[in-house]
Amino acid sequence: QRQGFPEVIFGQGKTKEQITKIISSLIFHNEVILVTRVDEMKAKYILQHYPNLEYHQTAQLISTPLKDIPQSKYYVSVLCAGTSDLPIAEEAALTAEIMGVSVKRFYDVGVSGIHRLLSNIHDIRRGKVSIVIAGMEGALASVVGGLVNHPVYAVPTSVGYGANLNGVTTLLSMINSCAPGTSVLNINNGFGGGYNAAQIIHMLENKESEVSL
Amino acid sequence: QRQGFPEVIFGQGKTKEQITKIISSLIFHNEVILVTRVDEMKAKYILQHYPNLEYHQTAQLISTPLKDIPQSKYYVSVLCAGTSDLPIAEEAALTAEIMGVSVKRFYDVGVSGIHRLLSNIHDIRRGKVSIVIAGMEGALASVVGGLVNHPVYAVPTSVGYGANLNGVTTLLSMINSCAPGTSVLNINNGFGGGYNAAQIIHMLENKESEVSL
Amino acid sequence: QRQGFPEVIFGQGKTKEQITKIISSLIFHNEVILVTRVDEMKAKYILQHYPNLEYHQTAQLISTPLKDIPQSKYYVSVLCAGTSDLPIAEEAALTAEIMGVSVKRFYDVGVSGIHRLLSNIHDIRRGKVSIVIAGMEGALASVVGGLVNHPVYAVPTSVGYGANLNGVTTLLSMINSCAPGTSVLNINNGFGGGYNAAQIIHMLENKESEVSL
Amino acid sequence: QRQGFPEVIFGQGKTKEQITKIISSLIFHNEVILVTRVDEMKAKYILQHYPNLEYHQTAQLISTPLKDIPQSKYYVSVLCAGTSDLPIAEEAALTAEIMGVSVKRFYDVGVSGIHRLLSNIHDIRRGKVSIVIAGMEGALASVVGGLVNHPVYAVPTSVGYGANLNGVTTLLSMINSCAPGTSVLNINNGFGGGYNAAQIIHMLENKESEVSL
Amino acid sequence: QRQGFPEVIFGQGKTKEQITKIISSLIFHNEVILVTRVDEMKAKYILQHYPNLEYHQTAQLISTPLKDIPQSKYYVSVLCAGTSDLPIAEEAALTAEIMGVSVKRFYDVGVSGIHRLLSNIHDIRRGKVSIVIAGMEGALASVVGGLVNHPVYAVPTSVGYGANLNGVTTLLSMINSCAPGTSVLNINNGFGGGYNAAQIIHMLENKESEVSL
Amino acid sequence: QRQGFPEVIFGQGKTKEQITKIISSLIFHNEVILVTRVDEMKAKYILQHYPNLEYHQTAQLISTPLKDIPQSKYYVSVLCAGTSDLPIAEEAALTAEIMGVSVKRFYDVGVSGIHRLLSNIHDIRRGKVSIVIAGMEGALASVVGGLVNHPVYAVPTSVGYGANLNGVTTLLSMINSCAPGTSVLNINNGFGGGYNAAQIIHMLENKESEVSL
Amino acid sequence: QRQGFPEVIFGQGKTKEQITKIISSLIFHNEVILVTRVDEMKAKYILQHYPNLEYHQTAQLISTPLKDIPQSKYYVSVLCAGTSDLPIAEEAALTAEIMGVSVKRFYDVGVSGIHRLLSNIHDIRRGKVSIVIAGMEGALASVVGGLVNHPVYAVPTSVGYGANLNGVTTLLSMINSCAPGTSVLNINNGFGGGYNAAQIIHMLENKESEVSL
Amino acid sequence: QRQGFPEVIFGQGKTKEQITKIISSLIFHNEVILVTRVDEMKAKYILQHYPNLEYHQTAQLISTPLKDIPQSKYYVSVLCAGTSDLPIAEEAALTAEIMGVSVKRFYDVGVSGIHRLLSNIHDIRRGKVSIVIAGMEGALASVVGGLVNHPVYAVPTSVGYGANLNGVTTLLSMINSCAPGTSVLNINNGFGGGYNAAQIIHMLENKESEVSL
Ligand SMILES: Nc1ncnc2c1ncn2[C@@H]1O[C@H](COP(=O)(O)O)[C@@H](O)[C@H]1O
Ligand SMILES: Nc1ncnc2c1ncn2[C@@H]1O[C@H](COP(=O)(O)O)[C@@H](O)[C@H]1O
Ligand SMILES: Nc1ncnc2c1ncn2[C@@H]1O[C@H](COP(=O)(O)O)[C@@H](O)[C@H]1O
Ligand SMILES: Nc1ncnc2c1ncn2[C@@H]1O[C@H](COP(=O)(O)O)[C@@H](O)[C@H]1O
Ligand SMILES: [Mg+2]
Ligand SMILES: [Mg+2]
Ligand SMILES: [Mg+2]
Ligand SMILES: [Mg+2]
Ligand SMILES: [Mg+2]
Ligand SMILES: [Mg+2]
Ligand SMILES: [Mg+2]
Ligand SMILES: [Mg+2]
Repeated sequence: QRQGFPEVIFGQGKTKEQITKIISSLIFHNEVILVTRVDEMKAKYILQHYPNLEYHQTAQLISTPLKDIPQSKYYVSVLCAGTSDLPIAEEAALTAEIMGVSVKRFYDVGVSGIHRLLSNIHDIRRGKVSIVIAGMEGALASVVGGLVNHPVYAVPTSVGYGANLNGVTTLLSMINSCAPGTSVLNINNGFGGGYNAAQIIHMLENKESEVSL
Repeated sequence: QRQGFPEVIFGQGKTKEQITKIISSLIFHNEVILVTRVDEMKAKYILQHYPNLEYHQTAQLISTPLKDIPQSKYYVSVLCAGTSDLPIAEEAALTAEIMGVSVKRFYDVGVSGIHRLLSNIHDIRRGKVSIVIAGMEGALASVVGGLVNHPVYAVPTSVGYGANLNGVTTLLSMINSCAPGTSVLNINNGFGGGYNAAQIIHMLENKESEVSL
Repeated sequence: QRQGFPEVIFGQGKTKEQITKIISSLIFHNEVILVTRVDEMKAKYILQHYPNLEYHQTAQLISTPLKDIPQSKYYVSVLCAGTSDLPIAEEAALTAEIMGVSVKRFYDVGVSGIHRLLSNIHDIRRGKVSIVIAGMEGALASVVGGLVNHPVYAVPTSVGYGANLNGVTTLLSMINSCAPGTSVLNINNGFGGGYNAAQIIHMLENKESEVSL
Repeated sequence: QRQGFPEVIFGQGKTKEQITKIISSLIFHNEVILVTRVDEMKAKYILQHYPNLEYHQTAQLISTPLKDIPQSKYYVSVLCAGTSDLPIAEEAALTAEIMGVSVKRFYDVGVSGIHRLLSNIHDIRRGKVSIVIAGMEGALASVVGGLVNHPVYAVPTSVGYGANLNGVTTLLSMINSCAPGTSVLNINNGFGGGYNAAQIIHMLENKESEVSL
Repeated sequence: QRQGFPEVIFGQGKTKEQITKIISSLIFHNEVILVTRVDEMKAKYILQHYPNLEYHQTAQLISTPLKDIPQSKYYVSVLCAGTSDLPIAEEAALTAEIMGVSVKRFYDVGVSGIHRLLSNIHDIRRGKVSIVIAGMEGALASVVGGLVNHPVYAVPTSVGYGANLNGVTTLLSMINSCAPGTSVLNINNGFGGGYNAAQIIHMLENKESEVSL
Repeated sequence: QRQGFPEVIFGQGKTKEQITKIISSLIFHNEVILVTRVDEMKAKYILQHYPNLEYHQTAQLISTPLKDIPQSKYYVSVLCAGTSDLPIAEEAALTAEIMGVSVKRFYDVGVSGIHRLLSNIHDIRRGKVSIVIAGMEGALASVVGGLVNHPVYAVPTSVGYGANLNGVTTLLSMINSCAPGTSVLNINNGFGGGYNAAQIIHMLENKESEVSL
Repeated sequence: QRQGFPEVIFGQGKTKEQITKIISSLIFHNEVILVTRVDEMKAKYILQHYPNLEYHQTAQLISTPLKDIPQSKYYVSVLCAGTSDLPIAEEAALTAEIMGVSVKRFYDVGVSGIHRLLSNIHDIRRGKVSIVIAGMEGALASVVGGLVNHPVYAVPTSVGYGANLNGVTTLLSMINSCAPGTSVLNINNGFGGGYNAAQIIHMLENKESEVSL
Repeated sequence: QRQGFPEVIFGQGKTKEQITKIISSLIFHNEVILVTRVDEMKAKYILQHYPNLEYHQTAQLISTPLKDIPQSKYYVSVLCAGTSDLPIAEEAALTAEIMGVSVKRFYDVGVSGIHRLLSNIHDIRRGKVSIVIAGMEGALASVVGGLVNHPVYAVPTSVGYGANLNGVTTLLSMINSCAPGTSVLNINNGFGGGYNAAQIIHMLENKESEVSL
């Protein structure tokens, strides 16, 4: 009955054999599978055993093939500034998609060139939730928060150097966002952003499944 | 068209005269008013000028009277452990209510007596969103996150001492929650928790107002 | 020959008698006077002894009267988001003016309402230097840095709470700005921002005074 | 006369030759041997010289064979959430066992699935001491502390990422536990947890060995 | 059946009226009462309502009178360096005594005059548990840990200045103690030290009350 | 129209293929090229494709050949203490030069041998801006700030060990400089220092390009 | 036989009655008395009881009258930048003098005006030890360390604001000094600087009192 | 005239060629040579070029042969707890010896076995200065400081794990030492400890070389 929620394995720090073994027990129950933080080498091994799964290289995810998963009517807007944040942005976007939720990607909208963000704002606003992936000073979360009226999930990344402190500065910065309607995930936790956003879309499309006051 | 969203004034660090002046311009536009972080002394002064507003002492809020605001069909679950976290819990709950959203309060459910939480879990789950207010080690957020399938907003408070570091430990702890479906607000930011939760309920009850993919 | 540079007294932590005594020795040398961080009570005492000086309450500065100081042709743009940052913004603006430099104030341009910033951008760009005063997550510095081609001085303020850590988060955030052409001052150091900006304007208008390569 | 207390060598940062040499001097005195933090490569070398010792791979320990050590009547409950914390959990459990103390392992009882913990609580309570091994936000320590009446040793692990800060967040979180009866060890110090727990069991079973008031 | 465990109220941050109200409900159930962190002014008010309780000024505790509580055969050693740490040392000692546990105080044994510690070591060792209260660099915990074979609870205090960081340095220092058999409580958490120690003594004197393996 | 400003690529964290591809699109537009943080191996690959570019090994930069770029009349003074800071000093100096700005290098002027600094002070002062590169305690920035009347950009480096905290100490130290007229860049951000300095020189030599008040 | 070493009482956090009581027991033994961190109000009370002692207001010290203490042949150089650091500088200087050691004060030698330091360097060098008192970025310690060949004690003060972090930045900066021959005391620990310096002078003048190798 | 002071090269972060080149210029001036932080591979290369120098492997130092350097009459006591701190202890000891100062080593005197320290205390006291090398909680510095009457240099090491924070905890702990007469060096800065100690011994044996008051 946890339908729509995949069984998630956190791949980091697990051996390829351990992951394969966990998958085998889950597949047996016919679950939707999602494994995060899988590097290419581990992925190769796992897909030899489970060739029906698919590997998303940028996001470092293994999952039940996306084509087998129906997508939602409403969509989530996923935003980031550029190449360095792509792996986390894709972790977020694909997590949502694996949970059956449509995603629109806005991947070149950093605040140091604000016009690219502004020229996309109409489509960003039409999404029901935004996930903002940003490193360095994380200003994108505040700017987006001020431009949309729906929930914004801010995911700090460890992209930066020096006083970025491996993303801690970005995290603290986002937690202090001056725009209401924003909440924050752990550093590089694209998965968490996608999961939260998908929970909201699920409710929007199945709201009869839970009773009211 | 920002209907349902009150005009919010952050009262902390503003004088009673400054707040009164801002209210006067907003009232003129017939907005829903919400002023946060107003101590009793300031509140008295402001209510002398605007006796139609009401003051919520525990939450330190001034607002348009709640009775004038229609409440939503779905509700938000607001949870905390006890007396020390009450001001922030009420800031969260009242913010949602002022935004027209129903709230169910669960105010004695700390993890050191887990049975109280478990005996309320059915009603907590029936809410569409949970806001978890906790100080010290903030474990309540993780436990609730593992028990519900809807979005959880974790609000760390500065309740604690010593290595609590005025709530920074609670914040970092919540950011690391092992339960997916949780996101985090700034320390003592009950307002932010209520605002985010209300955004979701608004969408659930007005979803036709935004177009799909 | 340090013409144009006032004698600056850091008033914080000095008694009104100490400040008065230092002023008396400087006035004797006919210098331009600037005392920063002077609260109203101290100011009253000092102005009784030196009624020719003037007190700027918001900025907490005492100085040689502004009307006696000629202003530059080029100007500095001073930006901030609103009332809470005003004292530091005025410390920056008045420091520049006391150093003989024109200032244009843009005091309601926070990133959570980005259109106000954009509608002023032409005039901000016409300044030769920008000073950006911001608290919380400090995103304004990055956004401005991306919109102008001249040097930006970012001054973090201690406006914020919780994980703002009294401005340390804002400082670190600004240090990580993704927009090139930005450099950072200490928390609440409006004086430093004004001083640096004035140095640049001085050079622009008197460049013959120093020899080339 | 330090009977029951093994001679402990902290293997980390020592070469295989250094460890072997220290063992040789201890064996000469017929002591119980415990070497912690020994990787597989070092272990192989050492066991070639002392084939009578045994290597516990998950815990990275070398010790006098467990079968030679009598176990206590009372037992210690060792708890953790899953695979990532296993090495530290085993360091704790085996340290106790090498000190002659019985251990019951509860290794799949994380707070994000609280029912597994609750269904084991009777047996956990029957132990005389609990050692709780947890990473991320460390909430398990508080939950267990609230459910048992005996001393709880909380061992934070460095399992986590981002704002986990290599276990510092977990440590601070546990230090702030809202459940009385809990105390905390260094990050990954499973050894310390096992050692403390064993001291208590030793006293319970040999209490005549020390005089009363 | 939570016999021997008092009902504990954390007085800090509660008003005298709130504390009195909580006491009234507990007294009704005939519990042993312990209120920590009560300043003299609050205490006076509370004792006017409950003159049968007693106030311990140094420790800032209100409790059921000590003379009504039988003391254990085994004792806990409570150690500190001098006057500044007394309030926390007494919080620890009295907590244990209110839980029915005997205490021996060693209150002038700082490491900068190590002979005083050494001349008391025999009696310290005869205790079943040690609680070491120390501020500054907290070295006392390590020295004691190396001299006794029973569990040591280290309670860092916020006594110190500058780089002591309000006790955070002391806490981190104690967590790194080189002596095995030591575990750590929150800064100034004398209560926690006393509570843990009392749990151990309770088991030593009532061990039949829990079943063996 | 961003004439004089090169297109800058941050090479760190990008593959040699990605960098080559970005260069190809920029060259097409006939831009001045600057790629920072390129190690020797990547540089070799890139220069095989674009043999007209040049690699500056110490600074780890690839750029349009310097000989094709006209240099300014005014110059920037770049200062550091010695060999360890050279890579960052050269990143700063070359960034300025690639932006068409003359540089004078003062590379052996650390504060522990202050006479070397003093014997160069005349030439340092003749520059229009100073960039001070320093690691460890970063004292050089304050000393230089006190000796010159033009803007100083302080660039902390991660040169140091232990309590240097990878340059964070140097950064905080520079932010607290007691000499007015100093502002600070991120750790190791030589690029930022050069870029800011060049902005100023550009204005000094083209000031007619922007309108006055 | 601890001749020359005064009995030192750390006054901070002790009541005037407690201090008076400790003095009374020491005076009985005819010791040299030194009480640090005594504010004016406490001092008044104490001197009423012990009118033979003297109060040094800037340094906040009470001591045996200086005129009763013979001064050494060699002297200690005490340096600071100006008024804000005076209390700590005097704590250092007077501690040395109370221990019978001569002091030469250099109190206006901050690095932002390096010529004042240089014009005094001959006399500073003639001292046998230097104590450098500095706040903000603490650069003075490095500059002095590079100019003298004797031991330098660096005492960071909490003078500064913002990113000074109450002196922690100054402390870390001094710990990283690039000049060999420098060691560091706690923030505001002028006493420690004076005490260490006096130990050295004592040895220089009484070296026969300890045996050689 | 800097007689007795060697020319010191900080080898860390320098290539073997760079070090060799610096040595060649110094040897030319007939200086005493000291190169710190040289690993075995670099050392081999350097000694092929300068076979008259000698390499001290534990300390990772290259120097003028010790047998060519006369040793002082007075000695320095160098203390540490065991094998892990040896490299830093030897860096300190050899630095002093290369500066012509006698050293007595006490290398097994950690506080968790305090009797070994106490049984050596007579000889430790006979030294004129103590250098205490310690990791973890650094308690040894306080204990020694309380037992000797001469200056103590505390050198924190990065030996430890978890909350040791790579020696930062040890550093802060030592800075807070409760024993007067102690000052602190950077983490792992054995060189600094030896250098300071040697400065004192030089003065004791050559005091006529500097003039008195
Ligand atoms: N990339 C990720 N970041 C954070 N948490 C994750 C990630 N992937 C999976 N998780 C969480 O980790 C849990 C599985 O952990 P495990 O049982 O160790 O495989 C899932 O239920 C998720 O809550
Ligand atoms: N895994 C561990 N974590 C923390 N401390 C340990 C560990 N293993 C051993 N120790 C401690 O290290 C001491 C031995 O250190 P050493 O003399 O360096 O081998 C033992 O007495 C224990 O107190
Ligand atoms: N060494 C550097 N340090 C800091 N920022 C840099 C550096 N090099 C380039 N940048 C910035 O990075 C931007 C390009 O980033 P990207 O688009 O990721 O290549 C440039 O516009 C600069 O603002
Ligand atoms: N191991 C060490 N730790 C700290 N500072 C050192 C060390 N070895 C040398 N130094 C310092 O580094 C200076 C030489 O630095 P450099 O010019 O970079 O070789 C010497 O004068 C010493 O002050
Ligand atoms: Mg919004
Ligand atoms: Mg959930
Ligand atoms: Mg710009
Ligand atoms: Mg319990
Ligand atoms: Mg022990
Ligand atoms: Mg200057
Ligand atoms: Mg020197
Ligand atoms: Mg001493």
